[in-house]
Amino acid sequence: MSEDRETGTALQPRWDAAGLVTAVVTDVATGELLMVAHMNAEALAATLERGEAVFWSRSRQEIWRKGATSGHVQKLVEMRIDCDQDAVWLKVQPAGPACHTGARSCFYRLVERDGRLISEP
Amino acid sequence: MSEDRETGTALQPRWDAAGLVTAVVTDVATGELLMVAHMNAEALAATLERGEAVFWSRSRQEIWRKGATSGHVQKLVEMRIDCDQDAVWLKVQPAGPACHTGARSCFYRLVERDGRLISEP
Repeated sequence: MSEDRETGTALQPRWDAAGLVTAVVTDVATGELLMVAHMNAEALAATLERGEAVFWSRSRQEIWRKGATSGHVQKLVEMRIDCDQDAVWLKVQPAGPACHTGARSCFYRLVERDGRLISEP
Repeated sequence: MSEDRETGTALQPRWDAAGLVTAVVTDVATGELLMVAHMNAEALAATLERGEAVFWSRSRQEIWRKGATSGHVQKLVEMRIDCDQDAVWLKVQPAGPACHTGARSCFYRLVERDGRLISEP
């Protein structure tokens, strides 16, 4: 792992084989984890430029401006990047539910120790 | 996407091509995002069974019991899974820094709008 990448001041994302990094999105007000998505170089640049979350949709294989159709944009308050620069953390102000199911967070189910899932928004 | 997977009560992880799901780890006390890692089926089962974070190390290609060498285990308080079951959220009590650099969180750098990184633990 490049030393520069860990300690430097330059944004040098470590793109995976598909050209993506992981994007973790939390609500800046509550700290809740809202969703996990992915960004390519264009999405990352657009997020910083617009100040709103822009992802790469792996299922649709296209740029995905969060809230473009739903109106549930995520205003970027702060972005952080991890040690090896393959993941970014977005603290956002969400204008609505993060999940396509309508749930506030995509993580609306608890995993019990025995593997059962319990819905608990 | 399977309807069951989104609304059901059965753990049916959607493993990627490498047999992994994304694992997002936050500090249950502070809400801080500590790290992002990956789990295969064995790591996920071991995490639930042990009640401590166990990952799959993509770089070493082996099971990675967090804290096995450093002592910085992450006690599992709660696990959640997202809508399409390709990411889990672990709320943990960390026994020490999450990052191999010694930082409390791997996300010790801010990304400025112009792409510069600023260290701010």
